[in-house]
Amino acid sequence: MAKIDLNSDIGESFGAYTMGLDAEILKIVDSANIACGFHAGDPIVMQKTVKEALKNNVKVGAHPGFPDLVGFGRRNMAASAEEIYAMTLYQIGALDAFVRAQGAKLNHVKPHGALYNIAASDEKLASAICRAVYDLNPTLILYALSGSKMIAEAEKLGLKTASEVFADRTYQKDGSLTPRRMPGAMIVDEEESIKQVLQMIKEGTVKTLQGDIVPIKVDTICVHGDGIKAVEFAKRIKENL
Amino acid sequence: MAKIDLNSDIGESFGAYTMGLDAEILKIVDSANIACGFHAGDPIVMQKTVKEALKNNVKVGAHPGFPDLVGFGRRNMAASAEEIYAMTLYQIGALDAFVRAQGAKLNHVKPHGALYNIAASDEKLASAICRAVYDLNPTLILYALSGSKMIAEAEKLGLKTASEVFADRTYQKDGSLTPRRMPGAMIVDEEESIKQVLQMIKEGTVKTLQGDIVPIKVDTICVHGDGIKAVEFAKRIKENL
Amino acid sequence: MAKIDLNSDIGESFGAYTMGLDAEILKIVDSANIACGFHAGDPIVMQKTVKEALKNNVKVGAHPGFPDLVGFGRRNMAASAEEIYAMTLYQIGALDAFVRAQGAKLNHVKPHGALYNIAASDEKLASAICRAVYDLNPTLILYALSGSKMIAEAEKLGLKTASEVFADRTYQKDGSLTPRRMPGAMIVDEEESIKQVLQMIKEGTVKTLQGDIVPIKVDTICVHGDGIKAVEFAKRIKENL
Amino acid sequence: MAKIDLNSDIGESFGAYTMGLDAEILKIVDSANIACGFHAGDPIVMQKTVKEALKNNVKVGAHPGFPDLVGFGRRNMAASAEEIYAMTLYQIGALDAFVRAQGAKLNHVKPHGALYNIAASDEKLASAICRAVYDLNPTLILYALSGSKMIAEAEKLGLKTASEVFADRTYQKDGSLTPRRMPGAMIVDEEESIKQVLQMIKEGTVKTLQGDIVPIKVDTICVHGDGIKAVEFAKRIKENL
Repeated sequence: MAKIDLNSDIGESFGAYTMGLDAEILKIVDSANIACGFHAGDPIVMQKTVKEALKNNVKVGAHPGFPDLVGFGRRNMAASAEEIYAMTLYQIGALDAFVRAQGAKLNHVKPHGALYNIAASDEKLASAICRAVYDLNPTLILYALSGSKMIAEAEKLGLKTASEVFADRTYQKDGSLTPRRMPGAMIVDEEESIKQVLQMIKEGTVKTLQGDIVPIKVDTICVHGDGIKAVEFAKRIKENL
Repeated sequence: MAKIDLNSDIGESFGAYTMGLDAEILKIVDSANIACGFHAGDPIVMQKTVKEALKNNVKVGAHPGFPDLVGFGRRNMAASAEEIYAMTLYQIGALDAFVRAQGAKLNHVKPHGALYNIAASDEKLASAICRAVYDLNPTLILYALSGSKMIAEAEKLGLKTASEVFADRTYQKDGSLTPRRMPGAMIVDEEESIKQVLQMIKEGTVKTLQGDIVPIKVDTICVHGDGIKAVEFAKRIKENL
Repeated sequence: MAKIDLNSDIGESFGAYTMGLDAEILKIVDSANIACGFHAGDPIVMQKTVKEALKNNVKVGAHPGFPDLVGFGRRNMAASAEEIYAMTLYQIGALDAFVRAQGAKLNHVKPHGALYNIAASDEKLASAICRAVYDLNPTLILYALSGSKMIAEAEKLGLKTASEVFADRTYQKDGSLTPRRMPGAMIVDEEESIKQVLQMIKEGTVKTLQGDIVPIKVDTICVHGDGIKAVEFAKRIKENL
Repeated sequence: MAKIDLNSDIGESFGAYTMGLDAEILKIVDSANIACGFHAGDPIVMQKTVKEALKNNVKVGAHPGFPDLVGFGRRNMAASAEEIYAMTLYQIGALDAFVRAQGAKLNHVKPHGALYNIAASDEKLASAICRAVYDLNPTLILYALSGSKMIAEAEKLGLKTASEVFADRTYQKDGSLTPRRMPGAMIVDEEESIKQVLQMIKEGTVKTLQGDIVPIKVDTICVHGDGIKAVEFAKRIKENL
């Protein structure tokens, strides 16, 4: 069983607004996806978050999103592939500057929220994101939904990928996540969540919401640091790996 | 007489808004300072402008400004040195990403508008900007007002500098620009402007608004591309060099 | 034949960016839809545009859009009905303040771009916009696409409406506009455009792109002021009414 | 002894970011100053906050600030009087829309942060703010620093004013607040704070940081709701009135 990576979205504070228990979650995860100022984060927050991640020997990734601060990048926007290429490149470059200025190297890129979701199933937008990553630095790793179009497009380009799974989300037969607005989208029971993760890792499969067993690839697991309960659960996941 | 560089601020369009005759001015200048999205420019504009500059063999620089789109970065903001360090680093990184993705190298950084002006006379803010440039890449050149605190701080750090002069602005005894709000700040007559530039280059001096002759160092001259008249004048400057 | 209103979107300049020949188009139109700062416009532009419109005895309307300056409000955003209610109310209130401060009365509201389009066919979002208008002031008139869900929702609430048609766009059998991305969406020939408008007014019908004759209601015609040619065409439309 | 008003700045949440114990402080104060989207707040937050304030029978005021979300409106911006007039009018209008839509009346306007501070001592900017308030609705009350230029300008125009004092800030001989960056700016001891407030109300004086006794007018006291301790202190102030 290969080493499974734990990743978390951090650096989501903004100006006077604080979000997330970044200091706590950085003690647990292997990789951090740091917001780049479009959906969350600001230059000062990025500077501090990169520093904190590096201090904890956590791999640093860029976490680009739609330019929608008030919607936290969770609302889909009808942006063109060209626009998505450019906004992704912009944000990775901005985050990378803080990493380079601190003498370190950017490890990966993981799109955020609506950008992550739309590109999971839209080949053209997935390709735009992957080309932005590749054009900047072909050694960067793309973190994306396991089985998604983004993983496929990244592999076409020759980018390294990390197939991401979620402990607390249920899956559909085609390997996609059950949309949040649908009943049963979230796994509330922690034991269930841990069981799902262990099955994914050991068996390479997941039991869908409908009860089917489907194959799934796991390189990295997304955990959350937005509250004490989330951090405690992330610890439990880690202990079980 | 050393080769004198001509530079211009470009890439100042934004979304549906067009500004500047970039295609024309790129045929004239040696260096382009490209807006980075805070006071002007957007990711699509940055992408296209970098491409266009490289096609014209014009050296590409980042042109970071205050986060004030409605004020075009011309209004001073009471940002701290820490904030200015971070916002400068962010913007240079973003622009640099487009340059790197196109296989080229960023040449320089020139702060914009109110950020340029405040840092010309404020040692602490000048230092913040210079450290951001240096921390990202110590081989970048800082373009800044000739004789300013920014030039001094850059030299302290060991950054290369380009001392910038203006053809169409009058100077004060201490080598500073006459503030725009004061009478006589602008040189309206083109012959006067060209005479001033030639004297700066040949004699290393400038005649102040008050009539004194003071020394001035010239590495680069700022020209404008915001209208047909400006572009014509830039051509005349170039022919006279 | 009732008096047909001519309306135009104006006040779309922003900060240092100028857009539209507002002074020219204000001499031609009866109603002006003034941008409210989310997709275009800023407080200074709103102040000046309201003043200019009132000076020309043009009826003043609010022109709210999605919060997407870089996309000029033309990109659809997956905002909820609650968000759309609130963003519409916010923008109408802001524009109304400039009208009230100048001793005048707001006449109407016309949503902009992607907000206009999505609400034309989405009952829930149409309802959210109409309720925002109604809750602020039930005597305001809603300008919306003729035959759209917005007109229907406004009528349900008891709001007065103005059914809007376009001279330069072709129509589908269901009365909707041919989407811009489809061939034949625009009517390029001016004579054709004027013919279409006159038929709409006189016959109450429009010939669709496919050649069918379908009924259409006309209260107001949208004309553009974004260039000399557009303004000339607006004049021709006016002369033909 | 006239009834002294307690006011608090609320509605400072933004999108996914929560700030302030608004529900708690609304049980204590008489007046609420609600952020208008430029330095904090968004349309959804404004909608909910106005509703909550009205439900608690708290008087609703607009709390306009500089367009600086990342700086929370606390950084001074070199905006012109014309710009400040327009941005103030815009924000009051936007907030007023939510009040009107809920069938209520806007009571007052209190500028926020850097806008409040700069206008306290700058006659021209104070006048711009007061004219924006007056032009929209001359029956609105201006809440401003006791003894400030804003109070003076408002009185010139015939606007009603509420002279605001702070329990937790020390004063200078000229009646201005000790700037936050100076030692002794804040009164940390709660007993001291309450003593200062009671003296202000009963004696109409305040003991300055330097020990002088100077006159001060009190109509309203600013209390904070940004934490449990602040809310507890607000309660104590209220009990002591």
